[in-house]
Amino acid sequence: MRVALGQFNAVVGDLAGNAEKMRQIYAQAVKADVDLLVFPELAICGYPPEDLLYKRHFLRDCKLTLEKLAADCPEITVVAGFVERDEPYSYNSAAVLQGGAISKIYRKGLLPNYGVFDERRYFQPGSEPLLINAGGLNVAITICADIWEDKWLANFLRDAGQIQMIVNISASPFHTGKIKAREQVVNACAKELNCALAYCNLVGGQDELVFDGRSIFADSTGRIVAKAKAFDEDLIIADVVPTTNGTVQIKPAQPAARQPSDPVDEIYQALLLGTRDYASKNGFKKLLLGLSGGIDSSVTAAIAVAALGAENVIGISMPSEFNSPETIGDAEKLAKNLGIEFHTIPIGPVLNQFHQSLLTIEGWNDDGIAYENLQARIRGCILMSLSNRFGSLVLTTGNKSETAVGYSTLYGDTAGGFGVIKDVPKTTVYELARHINKIGGRQIIPEDVITRPPSAELRPDQKDSDSLPEYDLLDRILKGYVEEDKSIAELVGQGLPEDVVIRVVRMVDRNEYKRRLSPPGIKITPKAFGKDRRLPITNRYVDCKGAR
Amino acid sequence: MRVALGQFNAVVGDLAGNAEKMRQIYAQAVKADVDLLVFPELAICGYPPEDLLYKRHFLRDCKLTLEKLAADCPEITVVAGFVERDEPYSYNSAAVLQGGAISKIYRKGLLPNYGVFDERRYFQPGSEPLLINAGGLNVAITICADIWEDKWLANFLRDAGQIQMIVNISASPFHTGKIKAREQVVNACAKELNCALAYCNLVGGQDELVFDGRSIFADSTGRIVAKAKAFDEDLIIADVVPTTNGTVQIKPAQPAARQPSDPVDEIYQALLLGTRDYASKNGFKKLLLGLSGGIDSSVTAAIAVAALGAENVIGISMPSEFNSPETIGDAEKLAKNLGIEFHTIPIGPVLNQFHQSLLTIEGWNDDGIAYENLQARIRGCILMSLSNRFGSLVLTTGNKSETAVGYSTLYGDTAGGFGVIKDVPKTTVYELARHINKIGGRQIIPEDVITRPPSAELRPDQKDSDSLPEYDLLDRILKGYVEEDKSIAELVGQGLPEDVVIRVVRMVDRNEYKRRLSPPGIKITPKAFGKDRRLPITNRYVDCKGAR
Repeated sequence: MRVALGQFNAVVGDLAGNAEKMRQIYAQAVKADVDLLVFPELAICGYPPEDLLYKRHFLRDCKLTLEKLAADCPEITVVAGFVERDEPYSYNSAAVLQGGAISKIYRKGLLPNYGVFDERRYFQPGSEPLLINAGGLNVAITICADIWEDKWLANFLRDAGQIQMIVNISASPFHTGKIKAREQVVNACAKELNCALAYCNLVGGQDELVFDGRSIFADSTGRIVAKAKAFDEDLIIADVVPTTNGTVQIKPAQPAARQPSDPVDEIYQALLLGTRDYASKNGFKKLLLGLSGGIDSSVTAAIAVAALGAENVIGISMPSEFNSPETIGDAEKLAKNLGIEFHTIPIGPVLNQFHQSLLTIEGWNDDGIAYENLQARIRGCILMSLSNRFGSLVLTTGNKSETAVGYSTLYGDTAGGFGVIKDVPKTTVYELARHINKIGGRQIIPEDVITRPPSAELRPDQKDSDSLPEYDLLDRILKGYVEEDKSIAELVGQGLPEDVVIRVVRMVDRNEYKRRLSPPGIKITPKAFGKDRRLPITNRYVDCKGAR
Repeated sequence: MRVALGQFNAVVGDLAGNAEKMRQIYAQAVKADVDLLVFPELAICGYPPEDLLYKRHFLRDCKLTLEKLAADCPEITVVAGFVERDEPYSYNSAAVLQGGAISKIYRKGLLPNYGVFDERRYFQPGSEPLLINAGGLNVAITICADIWEDKWLANFLRDAGQIQMIVNISASPFHTGKIKAREQVVNACAKELNCALAYCNLVGGQDELVFDGRSIFADSTGRIVAKAKAFDEDLIIADVVPTTNGTVQIKPAQPAARQPSDPVDEIYQALLLGTRDYASKNGFKKLLLGLSGGIDSSVTAAIAVAALGAENVIGISMPSEFNSPETIGDAEKLAKNLGIEFHTIPIGPVLNQFHQSLLTIEGWNDDGIAYENLQARIRGCILMSLSNRFGSLVLTTGNKSETAVGYSTLYGDTAGGFGVIKDVPKTTVYELARHINKIGGRQIIPEDVITRPPSAELRPDQKDSDSLPEYDLLDRILKGYVEEDKSIAELVGQGLPEDVVIRVVRMVDRNEYKRRLSPPGIKITPKAFGKDRRLPITNRYVDCKGAR
């Protein structure tokens, strides 16, 4: 039997557009003599559709779109994810399309409701396995989380009879390390059930999520035999061949797809796709950002250029008296290296006028946080004004480390539409800078930008290290506290300095409101700020270890 | 048997503070010869604790706090909500405290995972009923949603034996109409199970939610015999008396508490408590807002004063050449009527300087949306600067109608910390203004403010009605589209004009990103923008009725 995995970039809500892509892939599959064509989870409506699922007209339109697709794809068996309405419930389902109609439906059994997932909000779990016969083989249909608990699945399929292959349709979002976890799941599941596994994952950016594709064929020993492209659409085809000794072999019909060269390259590609898709799916042709000559805005600009092309990126330098000639020069040099449109708008005159106006309020002065923040807010105003005037998307440039501790100005540098490196720890931002220069084969990001001690340049001689621990220490604390929900005692137990840990934990806790009011950004870690991590703003909990 | 409902204002995360309040209430109850004292759902940690529940040290601290509370409350039976950790699961539980220790635990059976609720994210459902004997009666313990499906509950308790009373501990958030729904539930449940019902609800503001209290005693015929205060702490006590004919009577030990006089008064009180608690629980002593002389900022200012006192509210007028002398005068008049600190900072000079600076970019001009938005952003900068300098909380003044259609400037008038009337439709804002003047017994909000056609005053002779339908029509469309998830066809079927419906629906859909980046505000309707309504920003779904 010949199976194809149609890993494509579905747009949430674009029912007609998604179906049209599926029809094109179907035509390719028919031409390649495929018996069974598999599309990702909720392929018809994109993932996650969130509260669109509460609209009954949306559910009806999904059904109509699926029926039309079935009619247009009569020649081979197609498995496609869709949302199924069966009053009064909805199901995360896989439709089997055969002979021009929906022949069978499988309902997802395990509904994730943690991390970024809210499936119990919308769906009822299914309770019936589905086996289909395709190309003479018995194929069990599963959806995403169903294979993540292999013992549950083995039990679920216990009475279903002999199975040669499991098909799994997924919408599994990227984070670093996820592909390894996924491969282990596929491996364990194929072994546990002694059958081949065809895993079709979604690809594309959707708000804060990036789906990385890398669909998989595994044989019945659990060996990963073929893997589709990462962060791009792909159609991979393989022949599934049962042998007389009871194993099932996989014979790929194309050479292996290139995979990310290392973890930093993988993050880079994720950011690129996430940025490109957020812009294009929301109708933005141009990207706009402030260039400070610092590492965060430099890396963000380079990713923007890689995502949408130099001709579609505009950099604005907005120096004040506190910016050094070196950083101002580096911003310009970077823009030149990238070949992007570049403008300079000094903020001094507006800052002075603001200051004069505010001086009418007793107690206002130009000394302290408020005056520093005002500079960042003027820059935010300039960028948003240009965005409004020219229709470009403003990229924010804050990294995860500063987002965590609130080292940013609300409605200042956090003002914009999308945070490219919002989930990238500062130490990884440096690695990205080196990587960008490496793959560019030249010094795109000036060396000074990488080696100069970081500074917000909002007052004379300011350094990040005046307010924050060194970034390598900070990032280790944040990984434990933010991503792993560790206590102060546990972090100190890991050998991290107690005074710094307590200081950082308090900073993270205190700044929940700033994060809540900041634009979405691309998730690349196991726990990003956003749908992954939902803390109340109003929260008096204090982890008391050390403060007692 | 004598039962007390300890309706108190728990602060999320403030374990020690909440327990201290419970000890004080316990002392009052002991003095009043109470047999059974009931506290709300998750009373120990506040509701909803959200992802604090992922922190194991938080779960441990909750347990320690509960154990200490039990030891301090040995004399009578106490029921209190807490989060129970039983590895590897957490439960939304009620602890029964007797003799200085936790004697029994009930685990919530029905876990809501819709609207603002995410309980399946954190909790496993319980499966065992719990009956306790208190004061000689058999009492079944339930938690919130457990009583909302009376048939389920009757079945759940079927084999539990004779029950004289159901205790329900709740954290049921307010929206208009909710109390009626709650009373129906209590009534139906008491009748279905033929027993009295003691319903203890949480009170207080928590981010976008307001818990309205109004704890209830019902007798076994379902009659509501006693109701606690709305939007305030209260301790209500009643004697529960079984009769020989099998009914259970309730004899309240105090006079009836005053209730909101009408739906507008109820909303007013909700906004007041929500504002007061957001400020005080987050450590803000002062509130700051821009006063335009329009109805939204006027109503917001009046609520701010009612919440924190005139001495803690600061109004800033930030006129431009587009503001009429009338509105400028009304802002000042309002401030005087309210007796608040008031300052005027004209934005002309800063606007001119911004304009000059932006003119260096080809294509910039002072005609159109970007220039209008710039004015709003300058005002946002001023307010945020004063907030930073003086530590006050900036209140945003956008109403639900304009929030829905995006009639606002991102990072301009949406810049701030908390949106008091964010969920109040414009038509209700007018009702609130009349109500404020009525209960004030004088013209607090100048009559002109109420009768003048609304305008953003960002260009000459601008009126809201240039861009938007009349507000009574707009609000009817929004109720159907936003709160009831109706389709265009359904709305037109209700008699609403198709062209306006389509225009409004498109505006709502297009502005999801603005809402996502705006501060939280107080939920008063069945579906508020916030945790209640989770739509993707990237979303190409178009309800095609009418567009075809």
